[in-house]
Amino acid sequence: MALAPLAHVLFTRVLRYDATAPHWADRDRFILSCGHASILQYAMLYLAGYGLTLDDLREFRQWGSSTPGHPEVGHTVGIEVTTGPLGQGFANGVGMALAEQSLRERFGQDVCDHHIHAIVSDGDLEEGVSHEAASLAGHLGLGRLVYVYDQNHISIDGPTELALDDDAVGRFEAYGWHVTDLGDASEDLDAMEAALVAARAEHERPSLVIMRSHIGYPSPTHLDDPAAHGLAFDATTIAEAKAVMGMPDEPFWVPDDVLAYYREAGRRGTPARLDWEQRCAAALSGRAAEWEATLASRPLGDDWVQTLPSFSEGDSPATRVASQSVLNAVDRVVPGVLGGSADLTGNTGTKLSDTTAFQRSTPGGRQIHYGIREHAMGSALVGAALHGGVLPVSGTFLVFSDYMRPAVRLAALSGAKCVFVWSHDSVGVGEDGPTHQPVEHIMSLRLIPGLTVLRPADGNEVSGGGSWPSRATGRLPSSRVASRRRPLKGPRRSRSTVWPRAPTCSTPTMILSWCLWGPAPRWRWRSKRRGCSAPMA
Amino acid sequence: MALAPLAHVLFTRVLRYDATAPHWADRDRFILSCGHASILQYAMLYLAGYGLTLDDLREFRQWGSSTPGHPEVGHTVGIEVTTGPLGQGFANGVGMALAEQSLRERFGQDVCDHHIHAIVSDGDLEEGVSHEAASLAGHLGLGRLVYVYDQNHISIDGPTELALDDDAVGRFEAYGWHVTDLGDASEDLDAMEAALVAARAEHERPSLVIMRSHIGYPSPTHLDDPAAHGLAFDATTIAEAKAVMGMPDEPFWVPDDVLAYYREAGRRGTPARLDWEQRCAAALSGRAAEWEATLASRPLGDDWVQTLPSFSEGDSPATRVASQSVLNAVDRVVPGVLGGSADLTGNTGTKLSDTTAFQRSTPGGRQIHYGIREHAMGSALVGAALHGGVLPVSGTFLVFSDYMRPAVRLAALSGAKCVFVWSHDSVGVGEDGPTHQPVEHIMSLRLIPGLTVLRPADGNEVSGGGSWPSRATGRLPSSRVASRRRPLKGPRRSRSTVWPRAPTCSTPTMILSWCLWGPAPRWRWRSKRRGCSAPMA
Repeated sequence: MALAPLAHVLFTRVLRYDATAPHWADRDRFILSCGHASILQYAMLYLAGYGLTLDDLREFRQWGSSTPGHPEVGHTVGIEVTTGPLGQGFANGVGMALAEQSLRERFGQDVCDHHIHAIVSDGDLEEGVSHEAASLAGHLGLGRLVYVYDQNHISIDGPTELALDDDAVGRFEAYGWHVTDLGDASEDLDAMEAALVAARAEHERPSLVIMRSHIGYPSPTHLDDPAAHGLAFDATTIAEAKAVMGMPDEPFWVPDDVLAYYREAGRRGTPARLDWEQRCAAALSGRAAEWEATLASRPLGDDWVQTLPSFSEGDSPATRVASQSVLNAVDRVVPGVLGGSADLTGNTGTKLSDTTAFQRSTPGGRQIHYGIREHAMGSALVGAALHGGVLPVSGTFLVFSDYMRPAVRLAALSGAKCVFVWSHDSVGVGEDGPTHQPVEHIMSLRLIPGLTVLRPADGNEVSGGGSWPSRATGRLPSSRVASRRRPLKGPRRSRSTVWPRAPTCSTPTMILSWCLWGPAPRWRWRSKRRGCSAPMA
Repeated sequence: MALAPLAHVLFTRVLRYDATAPHWADRDRFILSCGHASILQYAMLYLAGYGLTLDDLREFRQWGSSTPGHPEVGHTVGIEVTTGPLGQGFANGVGMALAEQSLRERFGQDVCDHHIHAIVSDGDLEEGVSHEAASLAGHLGLGRLVYVYDQNHISIDGPTELALDDDAVGRFEAYGWHVTDLGDASEDLDAMEAALVAARAEHERPSLVIMRSHIGYPSPTHLDDPAAHGLAFDATTIAEAKAVMGMPDEPFWVPDDVLAYYREAGRRGTPARLDWEQRCAAALSGRAAEWEATLASRPLGDDWVQTLPSFSEGDSPATRVASQSVLNAVDRVVPGVLGGSADLTGNTGTKLSDTTAFQRSTPGGRQIHYGIREHAMGSALVGAALHGGVLPVSGTFLVFSDYMRPAVRLAALSGAKCVFVWSHDSVGVGEDGPTHQPVEHIMSLRLIPGLTVLRPADGNEVSGGGSWPSRATGRLPSSRVASRRRPLKGPRRSRSTVWPRAPTCSTPTMILSWCLWGPAPRWRWRSKRRGCSAPMA
C-alpha cells in the first residue's frame, strides 16, 4: 500500500509502455526488486490492462495462479524478471541496461531507446550483489538505469536501524551515481514524477531516487509496523485502512472511473509504439534478418555449423582454449554476443576477437569487464538475456560458481538464454590448494533444476560440431549430455524440443542454458500457466 | 614484493603477537585477505620465527608443503583464516572483531584487548561480501578492525580502471568507517606506522588505511604489470630486481642480521604476553572453568545433557520451534553463544532468550542482527569461530544458503566450529513460489566436503537428547546422521573421534559443523601436515 502512489506515478506518468503489446522490444523495463511486494505489481498489471483479472488477484499466492508469491517472468505477462531473492532485481537491471545500450549502439536510437526502472528496498541494498552491480553500473555510466530506493526503514526483525546505518547518498555517489534524496515524499506524486523525469534525462550516470516511505501506510494500525511485511490484515484492520482512504469496505473494489483511467494510461504508449514500428522498419531496412536473429539470439544464416572449429587427434587443446575458438566462431554468426568475465578473460577463454571492450567511452564494444564481481555478473547475464537482443556469456573459475549461485538458479528458473563458462575443474589446480579445488561443484550445479550442464572432455566436445554423430542427425547424443533435466512439473518435452538440433557451440568446462537455435529450456514449475501466450521478445 | 614494506611495518612495529606462542588468546589477529599473495605471509612467518623454515619456502605451492598456494588455517602456524576466494578474509575479520568485543565484554579488558588487522585488495573490495561486512562493521562500530587497502590498481585482466572507479574514501565513510588515504606511501615505513597506530587508537569506528602500491615493485621489468599477479619471474628478471635492492643474486638469501632483527621482533610481544598471563589469571579468578569452556565453545559442567528439551508425541513442534528451545538450552550451558540471523530471527528460531541485541551501545548483547547479508553472516561466523571464545549461530531460509555458500565451504574447509541454521525446507513454502523452494539445497550442501548436515525430522531429533538411543551409548546412531563425510585425504578417524558423544544440540532444519564437546570435525586435505601441533586457541 505504501508504494501505491509511486506505482501510480510510474505506470500512469513515467513508464513508456503499451499494455496491449507487452513484448514491444523498445518498451521501458520495470523491475520490482523487492519481489515480496508482488501484489503491488499485480495490481498495476490488472489496472493497466496487461490481461490479469480480478480473479487472478483473488488467487494471490495460490498454487497455480497467475499471481504467485513472488513475480515470475514467463509466467505473468508484464513481469520482466523473477524476483524475490533480494538484490537480484537490482543487478538484473544492470544487465538490461547493458543490453539496451549494446542494442542502441548496433541499431541506432530509432530502434532502441528506453530506460530500465526498478524499485529497490533496504534489503536489496544490504545484499552484496547490489554493491557489485552498482559499482559496475557507475563505472560504465549506464545512464538508462533509474532506480527508486524505497527507504521504509523496516525489516522483518524490526527497524532497519537494528542493522543498517549506511549513508545511501554517499555510498551511491561513491559509485558515480546521480542521487536524488526526495525525503518523505511517498505521497507527493508531483515530486516523484519530477525526480523520475530528471533522472531519465541524466544519461551519463545511473540514477537513484531515494524516497522515505512508511510500510503499512495508510493503515492506522500497521503504519511503520514490521509485521506489515507479511501479515494478512484482519477484517477490522482492512476496514480501518479503507475508511482512511474513503473507500467502501468491499473486497476487490475498483471504481469504474479508476479502472478506465488506468486502462487509458496502459494504452498511452500505443502511439509511441506505432511510431517506433515505422521508424524501426526504416532503420532496419536491409537488416530485418539480423534484427530477428538478434531478438532470438540465434545464428544468422544457415551454413554457420560448418564454421565451427573441429580438432584433429593431434591438436589436444585445453578445453578452455577450444572454447575460446568456438566462442569466436559463434560470435561471427550470432549477432550480439556479449563476452565477459570476472577478471579472468584470458584464463577462461571468454575473449571475443572481433570487438573491443564495452566501456563508457566505447559502448559499442561487446567485451565486458565485470570486475571481480561474480554474483553481479551472473545476475547481469540473466537481466541481459531476459531483456533480449544479446547473447551474454560470462567466465570465471568453476570453484567461484558458488559466488554466483543465486543468479545461476534464477537463470535456470527464468529460462534465461545465457552461457556461464566455468573453467579450471579440479584436475590441475592442486597448487592453488583446496580453496580453488572444485571437487563438488559440477555435481552441485547439476542439482539445480532446469540448468543444462555440459562438461566436454575435449575440443570436439566443446565445439559439438567436429566429430559428433549429432551433426548428421541433428540430435544430441545422450551420452554426451552431462545433464539435461526434465522439469519437475509440467509436460515432458521430447528431446527434439529441447534440442531441435545438436548444440554446436560450447564451452571450456561447461555451458548452461545453451541452446543456440531453440528456445532456452524453460523449467515450468507450475502445470497451470496463463496469460503468457506470446513469446518474450 | 610491493607489500613487503607494509608487512615489515606490521610484523616489526605494529602487530602485538608472540611468535613463540602463536595461539596466545589475546594476540592481534592478522588476515591476508588477498590470499594469492601468500608468499608475503609465509616469508613473514619464517622471518618472525613461527616455525616455518627456508625449506618450507622452497616448497612454496607444492603438494603437501606447509606453504600452499593460498594460506590455510590449521595447516600453517600463524595463519588465522583460510583465504584465497576474494572478500572472505575481509568478512572473516568482522566476525573476529565481534568475537573479540564479546569476549572483552564478558571477561574484561585484562583478558581480551586486541585488534584485527587485514590487508585487503582491490578484488576484495569489488566482491559483494565486502559491502555486507563493511556495512555491518560500520553499523556496530567495530573499532578493533584495522584494514589496509592495498590499492595497486592492477587486476589479472589489466588495470583495475577496466572495471572499477569507486571512490573508496566516500564508500567507506558512507559505512561509518574511519578512513585514512595515505596516497603513494608504499615505501614510507613511518607514514604507514603512524597511520596504523592512529587507526588502532580509533575505537569507535572500524578503520581503513588506503595505500597506493605498485605491483611488481621494485622489479624494473614487472612494475605495475598485471602479469606480476601470478608470473614466476625468470632468472634475468630476478637478478634485475635483486640488483635494484642491492642484494646478491642468490636464491633464498637471508642475511644473518636481518633474520636476527626479525626474530627479535617476533619475540617482542613476549613480555606483553607474560604480563597478560598474570593479569588474566587474576581476572579469571574463580572463572577458570568458564574460560576453558569458552575457549573450546563447550558446555560448562557435566549435567547439561539433562537440560535439553525432549518432546512427547503430542507436542509435534515445528522443527524450527524445537530448535529455538534447544538453542536456548544450549545457551544456558555453553558460554559465549552468539545468536543471530539475516533478518529472520523469529522465523528461523535463532533468538536467544537470555540476552539482548549486540549493538554499538550494548556490545555485551549476544544476539546479532546481521541484516539481510547472508554472505557476510556466513563469513563472520567462520571468523568468529576461528577467533575462538564464542559459538556463533546463524539463521536464514534454506534457499538462501546459496547466498552464503562460499563462506559455508570455507567453514567446512577450516573446521570452524559454527552452526548454520537453515529453516523452511521445501514443504510448506509453496505459496512463495520456486524462488523460495529449496528443492536441491540439502543435497547440494551435502556435497560440500567436511560439512556435517543434519536434517532432523521432529523435535527430538532436533534436541538429539530426548528419545535417542545415543543418550545411553554416547554414540550417534548412524541412521540419524544425514551426512558425516570422511576426509578425502588423510587418516580415517573412528566415529568416536568425530562424535565422542552423541550430538545433543541441533536445529530447525540443519546444523553444520556442530559438535559441542569434541573438536569440530576438520577436513584434512593433505596427508602431510607440519608445524601445527598445538591446537588453535
